[in-house]
Amino acid sequence: MNKAITSRDVDFAKWYTDVVRAAHLADYTSVKGCIAIEPNGYAIWEKIQEIMDKKFKELGHVNVQMPLLIPESLFNQEKELIEGFAPELVWATEAGDKKFDERYAIRSTSETVFCDYYKKHIMSYKDLPKLYNQWCNVFRYEKETRPFLRSREFLWQEGHTVHATAEEAMEETNRMMEVYKWFNHEILAIPSITGKKTEKEKFAGAEYTLTNEDLMYNGVCLQDGTSHYFGQKFSKAYDVKFTNKENKEEYAYYTTWGKATRAIAAIIMVHGDDDGLVLPPRIAPTPVIIIPIGKSEAVSNLVDKYYNELKEKYNVKVDNSEKSPGFKFAEAEVNGIPLRIEIGERDLENNNITLARRDTKERITVSKDIDILKTVEEMLETIQNDMYKRAVERRDALTFTAKDMKDMENILNTQPGFIHADWCGNVECENKIKEIKGCKSRCITDEPLITGKCVCCGKEAKHHVIWGIQY
Amino acid sequence: MNKAITSRDVDFAKWYTDVVRAAHLADYTSVKGCIAIEPNGYAIWEKIQEIMDKKFKELGHVNVQMPLLIPESLFNQEKELIEGFAPELVWATEAGDKKFDERYAIRSTSETVFCDYYKKHIMSYKDLPKLYNQWCNVFRYEKETRPFLRSREFLWQEGHTVHATAEEAMEETNRMMEVYKWFNHEILAIPSITGKKTEKEKFAGAEYTLTNEDLMYNGVCLQDGTSHYFGQKFSKAYDVKFTNKENKEEYAYYTTWGKATRAIAAIIMVHGDDDGLVLPPRIAPTPVIIIPIGKSEAVSNLVDKYYNELKEKYNVKVDNSEKSPGFKFAEAEVNGIPLRIEIGERDLENNNITLARRDTKERITVSKDIDILKTVEEMLETIQNDMYKRAVERRDALTFTAKDMKDMENILNTQPGFIHADWCGNVECENKIKEIKGCKSRCITDEPLITGKCVCCGKEAKHHVIWGIQY
Repeated sequence: MNKAITSRDVDFAKWYTDVVRAAHLADYTSVKGCIAIEPNGYAIWEKIQEIMDKKFKELGHVNVQMPLLIPESLFNQEKELIEGFAPELVWATEAGDKKFDERYAIRSTSETVFCDYYKKHIMSYKDLPKLYNQWCNVFRYEKETRPFLRSREFLWQEGHTVHATAEEAMEETNRMMEVYKWFNHEILAIPSITGKKTEKEKFAGAEYTLTNEDLMYNGVCLQDGTSHYFGQKFSKAYDVKFTNKENKEEYAYYTTWGKATRAIAAIIMVHGDDDGLVLPPRIAPTPVIIIPIGKSEAVSNLVDKYYNELKEKYNVKVDNSEKSPGFKFAEAEVNGIPLRIEIGERDLENNNITLARRDTKERITVSKDIDILKTVEEMLETIQNDMYKRAVERRDALTFTAKDMKDMENILNTQPGFIHADWCGNVECENKIKEIKGCKSRCITDEPLITGKCVCCGKEAKHHVIWGIQY
Repeated sequence: MNKAITSRDVDFAKWYTDVVRAAHLADYTSVKGCIAIEPNGYAIWEKIQEIMDKKFKELGHVNVQMPLLIPESLFNQEKELIEGFAPELVWATEAGDKKFDERYAIRSTSETVFCDYYKKHIMSYKDLPKLYNQWCNVFRYEKETRPFLRSREFLWQEGHTVHATAEEAMEETNRMMEVYKWFNHEILAIPSITGKKTEKEKFAGAEYTLTNEDLMYNGVCLQDGTSHYFGQKFSKAYDVKFTNKENKEEYAYYTTWGKATRAIAAIIMVHGDDDGLVLPPRIAPTPVIIIPIGKSEAVSNLVDKYYNELKEKYNVKVDNSEKSPGFKFAEAEVNGIPLRIEIGERDLENNNITLARRDTKERITVSKDIDILKTVEEMLETIQNDMYKRAVERRDALTFTAKDMKDMENILNTQPGFIHADWCGNVECENKIKEIKGCKSRCITDEPLITGKCVCCGKEAKHHVIWGIQY
């Protein structure tokens, strides 16, 4: 057990910030509510960007960069958006010693500037679709902040696409939610669930919002990627029109979708343990580390041999520092490196080396003459799959069904998680459920109804909803 | 000639903005002085990032992300910095409807936040060096703006490194300037010159500044990458101390270096022509485009064959749109795509295809059975080298020597460029030279003195300086 890290079962919140600090992912700064993303944390974000950006481009998206500052008058054109975001907006009001005529909001999201751009650049259906994405920083003045989970400034990607028909735009909304789901399941080994947000919980100004929801180890939910269908609402507010195939003027159909550095919080809280971070191999910036024990020629020759074979496929590191082997092991562990290869003089006398899995702590002694690349490939694959399986088991163990409010209360007071319950569709019932520890609807699923009666009022249910306490 | 583009020789400033618009690199926005970087422009920036980031990492640098907002009190700790930047700083003063107790500057550069971070994280010489870099947006409230050249918001990378000795820090300062020089010469085909800035022109707060200076087609200079040595100045202001090998407390040695989206302006203004953008192959997001003429099976089969062979090595595009061949050629030209492969039905009857170079407009008819990958490789290499050679020729044709102020005036009134002239080291002489069309010292070279006398006052010269009018 790492002494710098509080036990996960003793104090989960403290455990989380301890891991963030001990694994050098991020630190607090003199800027209230804002973090410095340190090299280990930023390397994970680079890996997230690399994999997602490749997928976006395969699907025809291109990247752009819109302004950080948004004139207040532009923001005001879409009332629902400004109302939803107003309390969180940070305003720039002066430059040098001169006040601006008009305030500028620091972007908290960029629908307004994208629509303003599209208005000028879309004339005909031939200009559509526009499939733009932007990687950038955004600012939301949150009251309570926690590294990665809820920071006043965070990094994200925001896709903004415009289409000639509602069908096409809705397809895009679905497609991008599938991308987020794929990314969480296949890359992050996080078995997220997806569905539609209720009216109350949807994005300000959207027709509907699809969401990707993760369950943390402690049973708290995390919204981790959303995809919004706006229909013609924004294009009407911002006058984004085009001439359709019938040569008639029509408002364009608009979607946006985003995923943020918050995904790093999910990785930590789904997979981490009392020794620190545990990274799924596919998202680990360094999936393998080689640690030499002793300085004999035999050791360093084998280190070089392995390194050269592995580096063709993996970003492999060799820890040649002056630290003790025990210290190096602990450091690789706290940093979450999936696989450790220990090459020691004593082992080598018996022609052996040791492979240590981060996820299970298993240490396996094998012959030094194995095909190291093949072995590493197989073990990383096994680790990725095992981590996913364990996350599914944990999620399923913390997935409950509630038939009435007594069930609901019992679950939330004992062990929160994903709670399946039918709902009449009435916001009053949603509000009543929220009174129990702030429990909110996570998403509407297309699974069949459970009892057919609303968990709250007992009237006829319209939707099967998954509920939970959220970060 | 492209009708949307003013001739370069008629009105260079208008030509520049015409090319930016016609090649869809960027557009103006409703946010004064801020641009939208469009897909074609952002793709160049992505390519710049990819190549530079790889080089930075090879040299041991790692990426981080520091806060966008900087508390005024933190900024004020380093007087020279705040004085240099004060007029250009944009201030955030409120969130929601609440005024902040203290203003926050939107970062115009991040020395202050990096030092504040390092102060907490550097204890011993064992923690050094720290080789951090950040890719981000910065904001400077410029009065006159032009896309890429001088935007209120721009994108850049800023390296911030801390070292245990002055020697090591100075080596880093040199090394990173060599990287910028390598990048301009080898990748951008821009024969930049490098040297030290005078005291007057150096970065606020630096001990000295190295600079990378490009010469545009019209003879105006562009600063395109700087590397600063701060010695212990910043570490004293921000209390960045460490215990050295002798177990004594010492202030750390600090460097920063940066290069911005401004490099895109340099590419346009060094290589562009009256038909639009001309991209050097190594920085072109799409180095090759295949344009089918006609829809016969023979054409589309050959398109597929070439595409499959080329895509292994290049981001090659096929223009299968409904536009006319002439329109497609013009579009590929204005976008600066280095090499165009035209596959036409008539050519194919004679077993031929046509290769069109963007830089020289040369069209070469070759057999369709050539080794297409090898041919493209060779041609792109030739284009890259020829573009560099022409840029060297242009630079050399616009490089002058001035012995006295009469020479200086003659040159600046006739055809500006890089002007070599000796200088006494006195700021009064620098100021007098500036009276001629705003001509400034670009950098001090280590070339031998020319006359040994200051070009301005005629007294003994200390430095051989290169002068010019700047953007």
